[in-house]
Amino acid sequence: MIPNTNYNQLTESYLFSEIAKRAAEYSKANPEKEVIKMGIGDVTLPLCKAVIEAMKQAVEDLAVAETFHGYGPEQGYDFLREKIKNYYAENGVELDLNEIFISDGAKSDIGNILDILGKDNTVLIPDPVYPVYVDTNIMDGRNIIYADANENNGFLPMPDYNIKADIIYICSPNNPTGAVYNKEQLEKWIEYANKNNSLILFDAAYEAFVSDKEIPRSIFQIDGAETCSVEICSLSKTAGFTGTRCGYTVIPNKLIFNNMSLNKLWLRRQTTKFNGVSYIVQKGAEAVFTAEGRKQISENIDYYRLNAKIITETLDEIGISYCGGINSPYIWLKCPYEMTSWEFFDRLLFSAGVIGTPGAGFGKNGDRYFRLTAFSSHDKTEKAMLRLKEFVVNKFK
Amino acid sequence: MIPNTNYNQLTESYLFSEIAKRAAEYSKANPEKEVIKMGIGDVTLPLCKAVIEAMKQAVEDLAVAETFHGYGPEQGYDFLREKIKNYYAENGVELDLNEIFISDGAKSDIGNILDILGKDNTVLIPDPVYPVYVDTNIMDGRNIIYADANENNGFLPMPDYNIKADIIYICSPNNPTGAVYNKEQLEKWIEYANKNNSLILFDAAYEAFVSDKEIPRSIFQIDGAETCSVEICSLSKTAGFTGTRCGYTVIPNKLIFNNMSLNKLWLRRQTTKFNGVSYIVQKGAEAVFTAEGRKQISENIDYYRLNAKIITETLDEIGISYCGGINSPYIWLKCPYEMTSWEFFDRLLFSAGVIGTPGAGFGKNGDRYFRLTAFSSHDKTEKAMLRLKEFVVNKFK
Repeated sequence: MIPNTNYNQLTESYLFSEIAKRAAEYSKANPEKEVIKMGIGDVTLPLCKAVIEAMKQAVEDLAVAETFHGYGPEQGYDFLREKIKNYYAENGVELDLNEIFISDGAKSDIGNILDILGKDNTVLIPDPVYPVYVDTNIMDGRNIIYADANENNGFLPMPDYNIKADIIYICSPNNPTGAVYNKEQLEKWIEYANKNNSLILFDAAYEAFVSDKEIPRSIFQIDGAETCSVEICSLSKTAGFTGTRCGYTVIPNKLIFNNMSLNKLWLRRQTTKFNGVSYIVQKGAEAVFTAEGRKQISENIDYYRLNAKIITETLDEIGISYCGGINSPYIWLKCPYEMTSWEFFDRLLFSAGVIGTPGAGFGKNGDRYFRLTAFSSHDKTEKAMLRLKEFVVNKFK
Repeated sequence: MIPNTNYNQLTESYLFSEIAKRAAEYSKANPEKEVIKMGIGDVTLPLCKAVIEAMKQAVEDLAVAETFHGYGPEQGYDFLREKIKNYYAENGVELDLNEIFISDGAKSDIGNILDILGKDNTVLIPDPVYPVYVDTNIMDGRNIIYADANENNGFLPMPDYNIKADIIYICSPNNPTGAVYNKEQLEKWIEYANKNNSLILFDAAYEAFVSDKEIPRSIFQIDGAETCSVEICSLSKTAGFTGTRCGYTVIPNKLIFNNMSLNKLWLRRQTTKFNGVSYIVQKGAEAVFTAEGRKQISENIDYYRLNAKIITETLDEIGISYCGGINSPYIWLKCPYEMTSWEFFDRLLFSAGVIGTPGAGFGKNGDRYFRLTAFSSHDKTEKAMLRLKEFVVNKFK
């Protein structure tokens, strides 16, 4: 038996283990110093009340034969798909129920969707980027080309008609840069995709952070997306489901390549290799979309938005340039004094006891950048920003 | 973009939709007649108390910041892996914690494990079989050969050294035949695999139904399995988790092919394409393995075992030969009077209002067989067997 040798082409990801290692060294040398983590992508607020109540009831349902739920539909319960259909309708997007697939999270779907796509396609991935896009394609042996995201294009690469890309990854609001495409920019990507017979994989995991009404929250708000796009979304950041695990993927019925319906291929993939999301979790997810749930999760998102504001106001004050923080929980700052991202990481840790994520971990264009996140508490965010300010002003000015 | 064209090679699975269609036609024509479903693979008893209490507590944990759980480890929480390690130790199998991977169910792992295996391997699959083994390999374009399971070999095919198989599927206790390999038979498979550099994918989903102490519940009870076997297991039938979703896969550290560690490949696969099982579900799964949980789930399994006994005693009485029903929730009966499985299905439905699963749906060797399951209630099982008896005795004798 020969394993999948494409795995030999993967580079080990040392990013978060290296961060943990350096943080541990610092804490050992400075046991009295409190370290503040501002690099985390995980949420910190508990689940909202509506979700908790729904999941408690769902657990009770499973305790009694009359309300017990065994195998559910692989593509998700209609009670949840109906709610998501209505959620999209609020933004003018009309979906058929069968175009919505419930999953155990965006990461699973982002990886598994490649099962239904040929290996000979060329993949276009922005740099910097969420490393999963790259690694999952290396595992399949696909040819990858990169689209530079940098200061010159506002971290929002646009289509280049000299390049033929079959599969295009777009993440907006973006991880790690916090950049967000507007309607006109997405129209240009959709035009490119439809002209080139390309598929756009649109990662909308952070759509709940969009507050600007002019910014699309779904690619399906743009005409023509339904013939070239799959949208993958998650409740992880929307409703704090990082450890609860629920997401959804929208695959339009009009998405036909080579006379094959991607919707039907995905249904076949999911009914064969997946058995649906836990009933309890789906009942919790349903509660996210009730009036009460919506109110409660928007309070949580506003809490994180205030953290983003605390961060960006500090950066404005001390003259550090950045992207994101508006319509996004991520702030992508340019390392001061031409430091590399790992130099800045070490200095910030050893001088201020603050941990962020070095941009180099997300691709070559991240080498001089640094990611901060809005997912900590107000207290810690304020304290970290005071320390950052003092560090930058006192040490370097 | 070209989709994965291997999907064009899949045959549509009409089995369960065809069953549903014929059942609906019957009910329409005979609205007064109660139909008893004896073909279901889903459990009917509610979750046991220990699991319910643990999951209620887990939901409460997520309601408070201090006990909230965000992203967990992709390979599962140690609290659950420790329990599974101890469960294996009871049968003399010593596992390292890192050899145990928690998943959202055996079906996901059975499909996804193929990600780490090369496409050029030849796959040996028993016939009849759980259709997922076949379809997932067709999706990857692998060459499939079949091992006949029939009366001559007691539905337990043995290795043939004239055939070179790289990947071998073994399901014991078997779905659909209910046949169970003994220690000596598994030793022969392990000998074949180790001599031929083959990988055994051992599906142990029904291990909890094994009552005979001489029958292995895990392939790792056999010497040499750790260099040629992966074991995939599930709590679906063990603890009624069909709709709750939790399973686990054991990949030994000694499993090395082509200088590549399958354990490390799978860890990389799961950390890249999966984000772990819901905290709530893992807390419920942990409770399965407590003393209280073990007692409660064994009561449930005994309930289903009694159903199996009701079925096999009826078949014995009316002289229908069968396989399974001992150490297994499935009873694989030979259709009486040389009927094909679909003929028997129709006759049993129209004469007795009882629904089972035609063996033809599991492969060519199932054409004259019929699967009954032990997952209904005592009442319904008894009633169905009375009707079956009357039907066979009166209509044909």
